[in-house]
Amino acid sequence: MTVNIALAQINPAVGDIQANQNLIINTACTARDALQADVVVFPELTVTGYPPEDLLFRRDFIQLAEQAVQIIAESTQGIDVVLGVPEQQGDQLFNSAAVLRDGKILSMYRKQALPNYGVFDEHRYFADGDALTLFEVKGHQLALTICEDIWQPGLIEQYKQAGAELIMTLNASPFHAGKIHQREQVVCEQVSLAGVPLVYVNQVGGQDELIFDGASFAVNAKGEVVYRAAEFEASLQTVGFTGGDIHADAIAPVYEEVASEYKALVLGIQDYVRKNGFGGAILGLSGGIDSALVLALAVDALGADNVEAVLMPSRYTQDMSNEDAVLETEALGINYHIVPIEPAVNAFAEMLSPIFADSKKDTTEENIQARSRGVLLMALSNKQGKLLLTTGNKSEMSVGYATLYGDMAGGFAPIKDVPKLLVYKLAEYRNSVSPVIPSRVITRPPSAELAPDQVDEDSLPPYSVLDRILEMYIEQDMDALAITAQGYTQADVARAISLVDRNEYKRRQSPPGVRISSRAFGRDRRYPIASGYRGTHLLTLKQ
Amino acid sequence: MTVNIALAQINPAVGDIQANQNLIINTACTARDALQADVVVFPELTVTGYPPEDLLFRRDFIQLAEQAVQIIAESTQGIDVVLGVPEQQGDQLFNSAAVLRDGKILSMYRKQALPNYGVFDEHRYFADGDALTLFEVKGHQLALTICEDIWQPGLIEQYKQAGAELIMTLNASPFHAGKIHQREQVVCEQVSLAGVPLVYVNQVGGQDELIFDGASFAVNAKGEVVYRAAEFEASLQTVGFTGGDIHADAIAPVYEEVASEYKALVLGIQDYVRKNGFGGAILGLSGGIDSALVLALAVDALGADNVEAVLMPSRYTQDMSNEDAVLETEALGINYHIVPIEPAVNAFAEMLSPIFADSKKDTTEENIQARSRGVLLMALSNKQGKLLLTTGNKSEMSVGYATLYGDMAGGFAPIKDVPKLLVYKLAEYRNSVSPVIPSRVITRPPSAELAPDQVDEDSLPPYSVLDRILEMYIEQDMDALAITAQGYTQADVARAISLVDRNEYKRRQSPPGVRISSRAFGRDRRYPIASGYRGTHLLTLKQ
Repeated sequence: MTVNIALAQINPAVGDIQANQNLIINTACTARDALQADVVVFPELTVTGYPPEDLLFRRDFIQLAEQAVQIIAESTQGIDVVLGVPEQQGDQLFNSAAVLRDGKILSMYRKQALPNYGVFDEHRYFADGDALTLFEVKGHQLALTICEDIWQPGLIEQYKQAGAELIMTLNASPFHAGKIHQREQVVCEQVSLAGVPLVYVNQVGGQDELIFDGASFAVNAKGEVVYRAAEFEASLQTVGFTGGDIHADAIAPVYEEVASEYKALVLGIQDYVRKNGFGGAILGLSGGIDSALVLALAVDALGADNVEAVLMPSRYTQDMSNEDAVLETEALGINYHIVPIEPAVNAFAEMLSPIFADSKKDTTEENIQARSRGVLLMALSNKQGKLLLTTGNKSEMSVGYATLYGDMAGGFAPIKDVPKLLVYKLAEYRNSVSPVIPSRVITRPPSAELAPDQVDEDSLPPYSVLDRILEMYIEQDMDALAITAQGYTQADVARAISLVDRNEYKRRQSPPGVRISSRAFGRDRRYPIASGYRGTHLLTLKQ
Repeated sequence: MTVNIALAQINPAVGDIQANQNLIINTACTARDALQADVVVFPELTVTGYPPEDLLFRRDFIQLAEQAVQIIAESTQGIDVVLGVPEQQGDQLFNSAAVLRDGKILSMYRKQALPNYGVFDEHRYFADGDALTLFEVKGHQLALTICEDIWQPGLIEQYKQAGAELIMTLNASPFHAGKIHQREQVVCEQVSLAGVPLVYVNQVGGQDELIFDGASFAVNAKGEVVYRAAEFEASLQTVGFTGGDIHADAIAPVYEEVASEYKALVLGIQDYVRKNGFGGAILGLSGGIDSALVLALAVDALGADNVEAVLMPSRYTQDMSNEDAVLETEALGINYHIVPIEPAVNAFAEMLSPIFADSKKDTTEENIQARSRGVLLMALSNKQGKLLLTTGNKSEMSVGYATLYGDMAGGFAPIKDVPKLLVYKLAEYRNSVSPVIPSRVITRPPSAELAPDQVDEDSLPPYSVLDRILEMYIEQDMDALAITAQGYTQADVARAISLVDRNEYKRRQSPPGVRISSRAFGRDRRYPIASGYRGTHLLTLKQ
């Protein structure tokens, strides 16, 4: 007899147990009534959202989650509901999956493999489970696993020995570029070894710096993907388990890499604004490529009516910058303000002149320009309840080419994990959908416009060199010698990585942004600020 | 025969392996030559400093540490050197202790209990060790343990069974108020059960938000502390092991709680400025108690010549604020500037007037004042290479009573873990040493002076109530009902904890500060920003 299994790829709200409870009940009832599902499977820690972080230390939070499970069980009779919930047992907390049937908890499974690397800290919260959990539906034995469990060999084979006919896995697996292929490959390999089909349900949505891309899937006993849900959106569909295998034919296409990154950034902005209750977003629009991209992303995420741009020219701003900025606001149909910054910059210069009388101009004066803009943008943000988006990219964040409390002021930094060359690719991708970013913004040389005729490449290696060095140093932990061995000059490598080493203090005060790489600045990369490590030490030794 | 054991309570620099190597060699040679020590024991992960965080993922860093151990071994012949070092073995990394003798590594011990709670993330980096390590000195069996190992029962007893006559433990145990008593109590209990004496060596110094207080000690077989090194300073002294027990008589006194907190804050500022290479510190001095305390701390940490204050009065600043600020600079003998903020505030008001014409005044205008001060302070910091200290306390950080990029602008926040009432106690403690803070600063009601006749208690519960509620909610994870059961009104509890819930985004962009409580904002408390959890939910249910 066919078992109809619904994959409930939902977007929960971390911490908002009441809202998640309602979403789970509605989704389960739809699966039962509209899709005739026998079982509905939700993502990892469904009830709390993932990752709940230190909320897990609050007893009242855990109790609220336990109560929600009871209410869900009572409200979803007639379908088996498989969901994730923290489970307190004495002094220990487990990352568990519950099977709800007939108004009761039928069985519980405790996650065995707790990830404690990258963005994950699960040993901080949870104790390891050590038992298999099978439950019977229409005479078939279904097995439970949670996320990391199936990235390690062994468990699926153990379940097979125990008589499992199908594996269900509840996940909160965050996106980075290429992750979907990695995820499916790992799972398909495990499945094809054991020959037991598998249903994989992932969370979708943005949560602070993490994006969950969904892309839930099902793998048949041969290790072939026979079902895939859409990426970056909520989804509820069924697969059929019959004749000892999974059958389905709805395979959503996988986005190309740049398109998937664009979608991830849009979802990140959307959910950060929505989940934090902001009434839209504002940003400073300079006429440069970074703010041009962020504006397009914001409008795609929030709609033109909910986004506002502010042009804040100085004496160093070229006319074409203002012109291009205005052109983009017109193409996108958004409201904008122009506020020249000279009055504030002059006021500060005069106020400081008695103290600075004997000193030369340096980056201090450039920073005053950037910070005057920061004050203006924050005033507009405060007055209107709109989230201020910063526009710095990953290349800038890496080398500290940004002003704290200036262009770094803001609540969310959408492209802080996007290297400069990828900023261009994303801009071109967006224009391929419909042209909104003026072409001159893409073709002119990048400049901070904080001094006369300034361009980025005066003080930095070309971005084609810089971005590659940064990726090897930051994402791959390669050392300076290994990087130079890839064909980069000692001077460029030394310049780039010494700037990375010295600018941790700036990154630590930057707002969160969307993680799209395998190592973003944030919970993914935990470096000391006071640090005597110099990545250049191998170069120095060689000279 | 007596074994002379030197306890090397050093202040290493995280990441600076070259500097640590030299410090270790010099210290070991002094122990050998001046103190006639047979063995010198250093703190946990001596060679890298603690905590090295994600530097541990860099192969070149691990190799540099391994090379340093070889160099140290060759340079310290004639004494056994026990030090901490990360040990790579294939894919696994261990938190290890090495015994160096005659130019070689005699033996290695691998930490067994890896803390992954509070401020610790050791499962992120290390694999568990599982073997005992004993080594012989003058016919005696000495045993090695590392930090967390001895906070859990069992290991000392195992060592006793294996013939250990003395336990050595290498530590990086961070300070919080009362920690020294907790630490000695735990260790003395373990020791008295097993009846094997123990030598405990702790690191000293500030590392980002952590303070290591030193206070190394030795416990005899009866479980009595027979030796204690000074708190908050480097130390090198010996104890004698003879007749099966430890003998010593140098017991440094333990500071009283408020004095220890003051010393911790001073050391925190000192090491953050020194280890980051700043040429001193500056801060905004308002005439209020918070900045008055931070100024006194900074001068005690860095000396009067290296600290500068800036008075930035507005139309809302009372004369007594300016007078008291100047009085303190004179008492401390430091340089100060006066820069009234009206010109910048007026410039911003005028620039924004076309946009704000139809809107009422609100906190936006207060924030512009605070941010104008932020721009001025950062300009002075940038121009002079001095670290800008922020002056916000823990009560303010908790409820978000601070302006992002305004009074929160700065590189280090010395008192961000000091609740308001403790700010007063610390000020009184400092004045008891020598009077530097004008008494009116201590006695007048606290005010942000951002609006006419504003005082903090207009919008917040009295600090005597607020601080207690915050401690229960933040440090003890108590829920709202449990807090009201302690005698606080639902209104006060709801007001305080809903502000805590809503202001995570501000705290996330605040600079690091000195951790002195059992739970500071920072690596100690990891909350989502986008969070639907409301600590008030139990109160609402009850109404």
